[in-house]
Amino acid sequence: MRILVTGAAGFIGSNLVDRLLAAGHGVAGFDNLSTGFLEFLDSASMSSRFRLVRGDLLDPAAIAAALDDVELVFHLAANADVRFGVERPRIDLEQNTIATSNLLEAMRTRGVRRIGFASTGSIYGEAAVIPTPEDAPFPIQTSLYGASKLAAEGLIEAYCEAFGFQAHIFRFVSILGERYKHGHVLDFYRQLAEHPDRLRVLGNGRQRKSYLYVQDCVDAILLATEKASARVNIFNLGTDEYCAVDDSIGWICEELGVRPEISYSGGDRGWIGDNPFIYLDCARIRALGWRPRYSIREGIVRTVRFLAENREIARRFA
Amino acid sequence: MRILVTGAAGFIGSNLVDRLLAAGHGVAGFDNLSTGFLEFLDSASMSSRFRLVRGDLLDPAAIAAALDDVELVFHLAANADVRFGVERPRIDLEQNTIATSNLLEAMRTRGVRRIGFASTGSIYGEAAVIPTPEDAPFPIQTSLYGASKLAAEGLIEAYCEAFGFQAHIFRFVSILGERYKHGHVLDFYRQLAEHPDRLRVLGNGRQRKSYLYVQDCVDAILLATEKASARVNIFNLGTDEYCAVDDSIGWICEELGVRPEISYSGGDRGWIGDNPFIYLDCARIRALGWRPRYSIREGIVRTVRFLAENREIARRFA
Repeated sequence: MRILVTGAAGFIGSNLVDRLLAAGHGVAGFDNLSTGFLEFLDSASMSSRFRLVRGDLLDPAAIAAALDDVELVFHLAANADVRFGVERPRIDLEQNTIATSNLLEAMRTRGVRRIGFASTGSIYGEAAVIPTPEDAPFPIQTSLYGASKLAAEGLIEAYCEAFGFQAHIFRFVSILGERYKHGHVLDFYRQLAEHPDRLRVLGNGRQRKSYLYVQDCVDAILLATEKASARVNIFNLGTDEYCAVDDSIGWICEELGVRPEISYSGGDRGWIGDNPFIYLDCARIRALGWRPRYSIREGIVRTVRFLAENREIARRFA
Repeated sequence: MRILVTGAAGFIGSNLVDRLLAAGHGVAGFDNLSTGFLEFLDSASMSSRFRLVRGDLLDPAAIAAALDDVELVFHLAANADVRFGVERPRIDLEQNTIATSNLLEAMRTRGVRRIGFASTGSIYGEAAVIPTPEDAPFPIQTSLYGASKLAAEGLIEAYCEAFGFQAHIFRFVSILGERYKHGHVLDFYRQLAEHPDRLRVLGNGRQRKSYLYVQDCVDAILLATEKASARVNIFNLGTDEYCAVDDSIGWICEELGVRPEISYSGGDRGWIGDNPFIYLDCARIRALGWRPRYSIREGIVRTVRFLAENREIARRFA
């Protein structure tokens, strides 16, 4: 099958591209390289079944050109950093909502009607039910990032109803693993690489977090896209465990062999819009036969190893 | 208090303006007059406490200028016709989502932090629970209109969390009454005014609909804005009754004294994205002491009378 991946040079996107190529598909990668890295596509670029289209989803003509012969789009391009929202309130609207609208319009015009979408557990806001199922009570948004992804989900669903699209929507917890390039593991790794004797932590260290290893995430995306056949298919993706920020600090320090003095900024959230606890009920994807192969601890350790083994590129991460 | 009303020349907006002026407030009306009517502001314009700002929410400078000394914004400007979505897929995104983002940014910059927002029962999609409460299961969108309003709600909620806004969000059923200017009562009225002997109906006539009379709607908005003091306050607004399209046809025909032959296009929905049944649980607004004073039948009869008494202007309705 010929598949377009937006955000192909990103963390999850590039891992998905590699897996699609390994499965024998033809893959067009679309990326504006604003936060992606060409290096993440080094192995993909060795395949004759891969081509990269450098373009921006805010440029409708560029997207239309990338859709030639495409049957399925995995839409992973996004502003993926929830923390930018407060400083730049428009970025999520533009990069996540308007970009998705442009993509859907281009797909509609070109007759491409299958889409897989990377959404987020952030859209549950401060969930009233934990672990949170896909049909949780109607949420109240607590971040511009979550709001922009909710808006994109709504657009995709409306295109399914109005124009015969089929969608697979994935609400992720935070993803870890090779090519991970923003978030608290990077922050802690960098601080400790610079001065192994001290670590500054946003919040009180007791914020609970749920994580999923990137290859487990890609497994779930591929399985659900193959097996779930409703018009709109929505899946939470996460592990059935969680950890505290302090747990992850312990595992990172152990992997690096350091024992820093830790100072906390205090409070039960790291930044405005930070959610104290995202923990998803993943029974729906498990019912398709999926199981994560890696624990949160293993995911964190693999992430730290990736960062340590790729110091040159990791210097350029956000 | 000094209050800005966007969509001030619209159906609900102009009725709200009149009520706010009657209550002694200073009111700035903002409207691009794309679907609003200056005539709806005839009585408001006689008040020295009213001023009209002609401008477009897609023009951020125009909004900022309208916010001088404003303490509270009622945001009613919107593409309010759910049926346009399929023909013009961008209109809801622009008029409802991006326009709301522009307004919120202008408010944030100007330090205006109270907003009342006209949302819609359409955001519940094909609700799994009927009557549908505000915390119904996480909905799947079935129209671009609903998706765009959901997106706007999410943006508003995120601004409450990030920037200390307070919001009152109202999810309406269809509203009827004086200055009503699009929807099936207008469609039926027009057909019967032209040829009283026949009526063509989209759908099978058995679609169930819930309606609310515009003054009851404004009562609820004013009461909730005064009494509900959470950061994010969400209210369904509707009556505890519903009718079939065939019921409303009967009341319209009785009011007009006609007995047309009726032909149905068939199917259980009138257009793509039409929802077969929106019926809201309004216990939350009722708990504040609100009760609708008019039945659906009375609302429909009053609407038909308004259309009959305002034939000149009604000719220009969408």
